Amino acid sequence: MSSPASNPLQIVVVGGVAGGASAAARARRVDATAKITVLEQGSYVSFANCGLPYHVGGEIAERSRLLVTTAELFWNRFRIDVRTGHSVTAIDRDRKTVSGIDRSRGEPFELAYDRLILSTGSEPITPEFMRPECRNVRHLWTLPDMDAIMTELSAAEARRAVVVGGGFVGLEVVEQLANRGLSVALVERGDQVLKPLDRHFAEIIHRHLRDRGVALHLSADIVSLVRDGDRAAGVELADGQVLDTDLVIVGAGVRPRTGLASEAGLAIGKTGGVVVDEFQRTSDESIYAVGDMVEYTHGGLGEAMRIPLAGPANRSGRIAGAHAAAGSSEPMGAVLGTSIVRVFELTAACTGLNEAFLSYRGIEHRSVIIEAAHHAGYFPGAESMRLKLVYAPADGRILGAQGIGGEGVDKRIDVIATAMHFGGTVYQLAQLDLAYAPPYGSAKDPVHMAAFAAINDLDSRPSVVPPDFELDGYQVVDVRTAGERERLPLDGAVSIPIDELADRWGELDPDLPTIAVCHSGKRAHVAACWLRGHGFADVRNLTGGMSMRSLES
Amino acid sequence: MSSPASNPLQIVVVGGVAGGASAAARARRVDATAKITVLEQGSYVSFANCGLPYHVGGEIAERSRLLVTTAELFWNRFRIDVRTGHSVTAIDRDRKTVSGIDRSRGEPFELAYDRLILSTGSEPITPEFMRPECRNVRHLWTLPDMDAIMTELSAAEARRAVVVGGGFVGLEVVEQLANRGLSVALVERGDQVLKPLDRHFAEIIHRHLRDRGVALHLSADIVSLVRDGDRAAGVELADGQVLDTDLVIVGAGVRPRTGLASEAGLAIGKTGGVVVDEFQRTSDESIYAVGDMVEYTHGGLGEAMRIPLAGPANRSGRIAGAHAAAGSSEPMGAVLGTSIVRVFELTAACTGLNEAFLSYRGIEHRSVIIEAAHHAGYFPGAESMRLKLVYAPADGRILGAQGIGGEGVDKRIDVIATAMHFGGTVYQLAQLDLAYAPPYGSAKDPVHMAAFAAINDLDSRPSVVPPDFELDGYQVVDVRTAGERERLPLDGAVSIPIDELADRWGELDPDLPTIAVCHSGKRAHVAACWLRGHGFADVRNLTGGMSMRSLES
Repeated sequence: MSSPASNPLQIVVVGGVAGGASAAARARRVDATAKITVLEQGSYVSFANCGLPYHVGGEIAERSRLLVTTAELFWNRFRIDVRTGHSVTAIDRDRKTVSGIDRSRGEPFELAYDRLILSTGSEPITPEFMRPECRNVRHLWTLPDMDAIMTELSAAEARRAVVVGGGFVGLEVVEQLANRGLSVALVERGDQVLKPLDRHFAEIIHRHLRDRGVALHLSADIVSLVRDGDRAAGVELADGQVLDTDLVIVGAGVRPRTGLASEAGLAIGKTGGVVVDEFQRTSDESIYAVGDMVEYTHGGLGEAMRIPLAGPANRSGRIAGAHAAAGSSEPMGAVLGTSIVRVFELTAACTGLNEAFLSYRGIEHRSVIIEAAHHAGYFPGAESMRLKLVYAPADGRILGAQGIGGEGVDKRIDVIATAMHFGGTVYQLAQLDLAYAPPYGSAKDPVHMAAFAAINDLDSRPSVVPPDFELDGYQVVDVRTAGERERLPLDGAVSIPIDELADRWGELDPDLPTIAVCHSGKRAHVAACWLRGHGFADVRNLTGGMSMRSLES
Repeated sequence: MSSPASNPLQIVVVGGVAGGASAAARARRVDATAKITVLEQGSYVSFANCGLPYHVGGEIAERSRLLVTTAELFWNRFRIDVRTGHSVTAIDRDRKTVSGIDRSRGEPFELAYDRLILSTGSEPITPEFMRPECRNVRHLWTLPDMDAIMTELSAAEARRAVVVGGGFVGLEVVEQLANRGLSVALVERGDQVLKPLDRHFAEIIHRHLRDRGVALHLSADIVSLVRDGDRAAGVELADGQVLDTDLVIVGAGVRPRTGLASEAGLAIGKTGGVVVDEFQRTSDESIYAVGDMVEYTHGGLGEAMRIPLAGPANRSGRIAGAHAAAGSSEPMGAVLGTSIVRVFELTAACTGLNEAFLSYRGIEHRSVIIEAAHHAGYFPGAESMRLKLVYAPADGRILGAQGIGGEGVDKRIDVIATAMHFGGTVYQLAQLDLAYAPPYGSAKDPVHMAAFAAINDLDSRPSVVPPDFELDGYQVVDVRTAGERERLPLDGAVSIPIDELADRWGELDPDLPTIAVCHSGKRAHVAACWLRGHGFADVRNLTGGMSMRSLES
C-alpha cells in the first residue's frame, strides 16, 4: 500500500465492462490514494451485458436495472474518475501514456499512467451478409444494440425473428423472443447448438427447441439477406431456402479486441488473446489485461485458452486491480469454462472439456451418462436430469462434465467444477459429503451416481459402451419392461426384464460378447454385474441407456 | 469376485434401513453368487425415513411413496433374501452365527455368516416424561410411529401440537404441522435450535418461526405431561408454564443402537459409536458396521465422530457391501456433517465445524458473514442469502460454513463442502470457476464473495470483528444511509454515508481504533479500506453488518 504521499500512483483502466470496473474498484480498496481513471468508449462505465437478452424478452422489465453502476457512484464512493465516450487509440509504452479521442467533445486526450489495465473485452463477429448494414439485422452486444432491437420489436410489430448462432447468447435470445410471442427460427452453421456440449446432449436441446415451436436450421449457412431498402425481409440459406423475417439477431461468435494491445507490441498468444501471467500482467510489466481479451490457463488442459465468460472476467479484473495497486495479489485461478444456459424449461450446463474436444486432441478419456432426480424421488416435484462425466482412464481424474435437465443442474455442475479445481478424481467425487434433505437432494446425489457409474466403468465391474455404440455382432439383452420396449423399441435384442433375469439368464449365451441395455443404464448395470458373475466373459452396459441412444440421429 | 462355485460366500446384513439395504445391493453387484440375507426387525426392508415428516404434513400425500423398495424386488432383482420381523439378539463370533427371534412365527432362528454387516442404526432418546407412554406423545422415527401420529391427527381432530427438540427433524415436523393448520409450540432445551449453526444464524430461524406463528420455547425443559387417561392434555415446563396440546412429537436426539455390537465385544469408540476402519470393518475383520451406529472420520477435525445422517449411511453401506463381498473396495471418505433443512420459506444448511464448537475445543479460527443474492440482482426473483465462512487463521483452510436464506443455499453449501473435501482454503474458494448466467448466479457468486471477505480479513485489508463485538471504546463509523439508520439505529456511531466518506473522513480521528459498520459489511469494507489508506492505524469492519448485529439478543 502506498502512503498518502504527494505522488500518488496513477492507474488507468481502459474499458469498464468485462472486468475493468472490477479492477478499478479493487485497486481503490487496496490503495486509497492512487489516482484511478477509467476510460470507457461507451456511454456507461459498466452494464449487465449478460442481462441484455432478458430485457429484449421482457423478463427484465426495466432497462435501468441493467445499469448496475454509474460514473457518479464510482466517483462518490471510490474517487474513481470515469470518463465515458473516451476511445483510446494508442499506448506509448516508453512515455507511459495512453491517447485517444474524447468523443463527447470531439477532442484528443492524453493521459499518463504508472500502471495500465486493459479491459477492452471482445466484439461480435460480423458475417459478410450483414454488410451493408440493415437496421433490423443486429448484434446483441451493447446497450445501443439492445435499444435498436427494442425499437425494431415495437415499431415494426415484429412477428418473426431469425437468430443466427446457437451459442449461449443465441439460445437465450431464442427463448426470450419466443416468450414474447415471436415465431423464431434459429440458424446454426454447425450440426448442433452449444458446442461445449457433446452431440447427444445438444440433441436434447434440439428436441426441446422444436417442441417449443422454434424452427431449427442446423448445418445451415446464411448466404445473403433479402433486402428491402434499409431493412431485411428475409435471410437466404445456402440450400436456397428463404426464411421471411422481421428481425435478425446475429450471435456468430466473438473475437478479442486486441488491436490496441497488439499495436503497442504486447505479446498475443496462439489463440489470439493477450498473453498474461498469473497476476494478469502482459509482456509489459506495467500493463495488465483482463477479461475476454486475454488468454487464461485452462484448468483441464493446462494450456492458454480464450474463455470469454463474465466470471473469469470479473475475477481477473479483481486480481489485476490489486496487483496494479499493491504490486502483489493472489494469483488468478485456472479457468474451466464452466457455463450454463436456460432454454425454456431446460437448463444446460458444462465444465471442463467435452468428448468431442478430447477426441479431436487425441486425449484419452472415458465417460458415463446417468439419469437422476434432482431431489428425493418420493418427494413431490422431483425433476429429472442427465449428467455426463468425462474422466481420464489412467487415474480417474475428472476432465469435464455436462448436465441437462430441470432444477438442480447448476448445483451439480458447480460441485463437479469445484472438484475439478482441486484436480479431483471420480473416486473423490463419490465420497463428497453433500447436503441432503428430501426437498434438496438424495442420500445418493446425482453427482454420486455419476461417480459410482464412472468407478464401475474404470474398475470394469463392468465397463460401459457409449450411447451410439454399434450393437451389431453383440448379444444385446434388453432388461426393460414390456411397456418401455413398446414405447422405444430396440431391434435385435433379447428381452429379459431385469426382475426376471435371475430366473432366465440361462437363455443367454455366456460365450458371446454381451451388452446390457435399459432406459437409463442403471438396471443394465445390475444385469451386467449379474451376468459377469455367472460366467459371461465379456459383458458391458450401454451408458445412458435407451433414453440417450434414442437421441442419436 | 468369487467364482460361481459350490461354496458361495454367506453375507448376512442386520438391519435394512440406514445403509443396510445399500450394502446388500452393492454386495450382490460385486458378487453375483454370494448368499445374501438381510435380517430386518421391522416390517419393511427399507423406507424413506427422511420423508416421514412430509407425510405427516401431507406434502407427500401417499404413504406408499415412502416404501422405496420391497423385499419382493430385492429377491427378484438381486436374489437377496430379506427376512422382515427378524430381531437379531446375539452374535457368536467364534461360530460365526447370528441368532434371534423370528417374530412373525414367534420362533428362534440362527444363521451362519462368512461376513456380517451390522446396520442397526440409531434410536430416538426417550425423555423421562414420556414414561409411562401416552398414545398422543410420540417419536417420529419409524413407519409405525408415523402411522400412530397420523391416527392421532385425524381421529382427535388435533388443533394444537407440541414439538420437543429443535433439531433438523424437529424443525421439519414444526413446519409440516403448521402447514397442516395446527397451532404449534416448539420446546427446545438449549438456547437455540439447530446446534450445528452458530447462534446468530439460529436466531434468523427463531424469528422466522415466530413470524410464522410458532410458539418458540427456548432453554425450556418439559418436566411432566398433563395426563388425561392414556393421553396427554398438555406439557408442563420447568418454569411452571403449561402448554395445552392434542399431540406431542418428541425429537430429543438419537443414540446409536450398539447393544448387539457391544455385547459381541466389538470395539466401541469414545463417542459411543462402533469403531470401524476405512472399509467399515469393526474390530472383528469379518464384521462390518455402517450408518448411524458407527463413528466416521470427521473431515474437518480428523477425529472419529458420530454423524447420524442418511448420506454417510448410504455411502458407508455401499463400501461395506463391496468389501464384504470382494475383500476390497474404495475407502470411505471423511464426513463433514453437511446438512440442510427447510423451515417454511427458509433454507438453513451447514458443513464442517461451527464457531461454537471450535471455541469449545480451543481451535483457532476466524469467520466472516456476507449477504448476497442467489442470482444476478438485476434478474427478477433474486433471493437473499447469508453465508458464514469459518477458516483457520494460519493458512486459510476452510473449517466450516453455514448458509441461510431462500433459493440456492444448498448449492453454495455443497460447493464449499466439496472444497473442504479437498482440504481447500478460502484462497482457492475465491478462484472457483462456477457456472454463471443471470437465472442461476452472479459473475461473483456468493461463494466468491464469502471467500473475498475471508481473504481480506486474513490479509488484514482490513480484518473484521464479529457481529456481537463490543463497540464501546471504539470510534464507530456508520456508513449507512439515513433511511437505513432510522430503521435500525446504532447508538454512539458517527454517521457518514459511504458516498460522502471521501469528502468527510476528516471528521474522524485517525488515532482512535475504528470500526466501520453498514447493513451487511460490504460498504463498511470499502470504508475501512479508505480510512486505513488515509492514515487510520487501527480500523476494522463489522462482518455481517447491522443485519446480523440486530439479531444478537
